[in-house]
Formats: sequence, C-alpha cells, structure tokens
Amino acid sequence: MPGPKISPRRPNVWPRPSVCERWCSLTVKIVHFSTLSGGGSGWGVIEDDMVQATEGPGGTRTGERSPLSAVRFHAPAFPGKIVCVGRNYYGHIREMGNDSDPLPEEPGLFLKGANALADPGLDIPYPHFTNELHYEGELAIVIGSRILSGSDDPMKHVLGYTAGIDLTARDRQKKDLQWTRAKSADAFCPLGPWIETELDPSSTVVRTFVNGVMKQEG
Amino acid sequence: MPGPKISPRRPNVWPRPSVCERWCSLTVKIVHFSTLSGGGSGWGVIEDDMVQATEGPGGTRTGERSPLSAVRFHAPAFPGKIVCVGRNYYGHIREMGNDSDPLPEEPGLFLKGANALADPGLDIPYPHFTNELHYEGELAIVIGSRILSGSDDPMKHVLGYTAGIDLTARDRQKKDLQWTRAKSADAFCPLGPWIETELDPSSTVVRTFVNGVMKQEG
Repeated sequence: MPGPKISPRRPNVWPRPSVCERWCSLTVKIVHFSTLSGGGSGWGVIEDDMVQATEGPGGTRTGERSPLSAVRFHAPAFPGKIVCVGRNYYGHIREMGNDSDPLPEEPGLFLKGANALADPGLDIPYPHFTNELHYEGELAIVIGSRILSGSDDPMKHVLGYTAGIDLTARDRQKKDLQWTRAKSADAFCPLGPWIETELDPSSTVVRTFVNGVMKQEG
Repeated sequence: MPGPKISPRRPNVWPRPSVCERWCSLTVKIVHFSTLSGGGSGWGVIEDDMVQATEGPGGTRTGERSPLSAVRFHAPAFPGKIVCVGRNYYGHIREMGNDSDPLPEEPGLFLKGANALADPGLDIPYPHFTNELHYEGELAIVIGSRILSGSDDPMKHVLGYTAGIDLTARDRQKKDLQWTRAKSADAFCPLGPWIETELDPSSTVVRTFVNGVMKQEG
C-alpha cells in the first residue's frame, strides 16, 4: 500500500472554515498521520475505519487510503503559539487552594512553547526537574486563520476542536517568576488524535485517562 | 537587478555553527531581506555595502547582490519560541520597585508569542489595550540548533546575536494572571537587523533609541 501524501512544509495558514465548507461538511475528523510501514507524515481525514489522505489539512483527497490499524497519529496542528486559559474550571481553582479568590473577571492567559507539543497517546517521560507532575485534560480549539484585533466574529476562525493535556510541573510553577518552565517542557502538551470540525463544545465531556484509568471528567 | 533568492519555506533547523564554520568565518552579518524593487524575501550576508544572497541563513552564496540602500531588512529569525529573561538588569529591578527583593537565584523566564516578532525599524503602533507601553532594549541570542536537556556545551548551539526590543503593556502586566497579553501583542518583539555571528556579548553595549533619541544604554 502506498504511504500517505507527504507534506513536508508546515502550513502557516490553516484553511478557513469559510473557504473549506465543501470539505468541512465531509471531513469531520482531520488527522496528521503516518503509516506504520514508514515514510513521511501527511494529512488526512477519517472515514469509517480508513484514513483518506488529503493535500494539506482539510484539502482535496489524493485517493490514497490506509486502514486505521496501519497508521499512527501525530499532533494535528503546528501552532504558532499555544494559548491556554488558567483557572478555567472551578473545581481546579478549589483544588489549588484559591477558593477564597474571586472568580477571574477575564480569562487568565498563559503560553506553552511549541516544543511542548507531543503526539497523542505517547508515553510522557517524568521530567528530572520536578517531583510534582500534574495533568489536566483540556478541550483544545484549533484556530484556522489569523484573527486580527477588531476583526469580525472570532468563531469564523475556529477550524475545529481536539483533545489536549496540559502538563504542569507544579513545584516549578510555585517557585518560578512565570509559568514558563513549569508549563513548556518537551511533551508537556500532547494533542489529538484528530480535529473535530463539527463539535458543539457546550455539550462535550472531557475525560482524562492515566495509564488506562479515568482520572478526570468534566 | 535580479531579486534575492526566495526561500518561502521557513527553516525548522538553523545551521549549526559547527557545520557552517567555513561560512561563519566569512559571514558575520546574516540578514533576512527583500529588495525594494519587489519580490519575495530571502537570506543573505552583508559585505561592505552590499547584501550577498545566500541559500538559507548562512548557506552558500547564490551570486546575486544588492546594495544596502536597495533592500529592507526583516526579523532575522523564525523562532519556534521566544524565551526571555525577566529582571535581568539591576537598574530595571530597581525601576520597577522591586529594590527590596533579593536578586533572582535563577533566570526568571517568560515567553513571547511568535506573533510578536516584527521587522527592525518599523513604527510600532501604540496598542489600544494599554496606557503604559514600556520598551527595553535587549541583546537577543539566536539559537542555531535544538538543545536537548543534558546535551553538551549549549554555547555550541548559539548561531549568533542580534538586537531586540521587549515591549510590555505594563498596566496589563500588573493586572493579568501571567504576562501573556502584556508581552505578546503583535509587533511587541522587533528583532534585527542582522545576526552577528562573531560577537563577544561581555563587551557589548546595548542602546535603545525612540524616535531617534537615545533612551537606554547598558
């Protein structure tokens, strides 16, 4: 079986949902994958138990197909920046001992470095610089095109949603000036396996499994 | 005159100083530029009052040349992340009213988003979301190849140095959970104009000019 279409160049601009409507109606699960038989990685969409290769994320189909059992998935995005919202879950605010704090008036943003990105489902090595590695399952929003300040409806720029894990070296976080080292070690942001283009986030449940055991649900 | 060699693909890995020694000995000023006559941007090196186009940063010469007066310079790096050190200058710690704080034991790291990158010398628009825009001239280190934890001498991975400005919305910085919005607005990290591969940072003076007037020196 031929390998997937290789796209060695990382796209700077993702297809806008508005211009890929034809594809979005078909391609609800966008993946970045490679075949277990070797070769480079490429983009595709999942249909039934097959991956259909596409030219770039959400692009036209190349005609090449691989069964799901013959591929592995990579993080389905090459973000220019990974913007996260801290204290976005009341149970977590309480857990962290900030119970008496007022709820944030605005989202508290922090960045994770692009080096933190990791393929979904890989083992995460316990880093040497922490004794307190925490994990939080997250719903990740994949932005499909550049949002300029004052632009129109930001939801038009949302390509879709995927699953992510926000790993934190909690002891580092408490000690350091900013959360940089605590949040941005290599593999501290597993992402994937696919971008779901037609998801209603308001009715979505996020569950986090550690070594096969469900640890978080919200 | 022909335009510079166009390299539309942003390199993920910069040439290591160790493998571009032949070039480093010649190419002390690496630039990312475009000609005023139009065309795409490309890489080059400055020699006398000419820019010699190269294949990628620090690569082989293409033979195309442009006078300095006929080009404009772009930020000479496409960093995967921009890592900054806060409170790295005693005069600034004092200025910010942290005089009684002990000096930091470790560098206090923070990130700027890649969107903050801007070409050198451009006008910086005063953002609408702040009334307290501050600037700090910085010596920027351009990392030429990936440094893995526990790897050998990190200085081997330094491609060179360039000038940068760290812009901060100080009022946002005081108010927000993290420094993300305060430090990462568009154009909050002008960089360039060139990478100096043979600089001794210990004997370098950084000066910051605002509208032509020197405001900082250190």
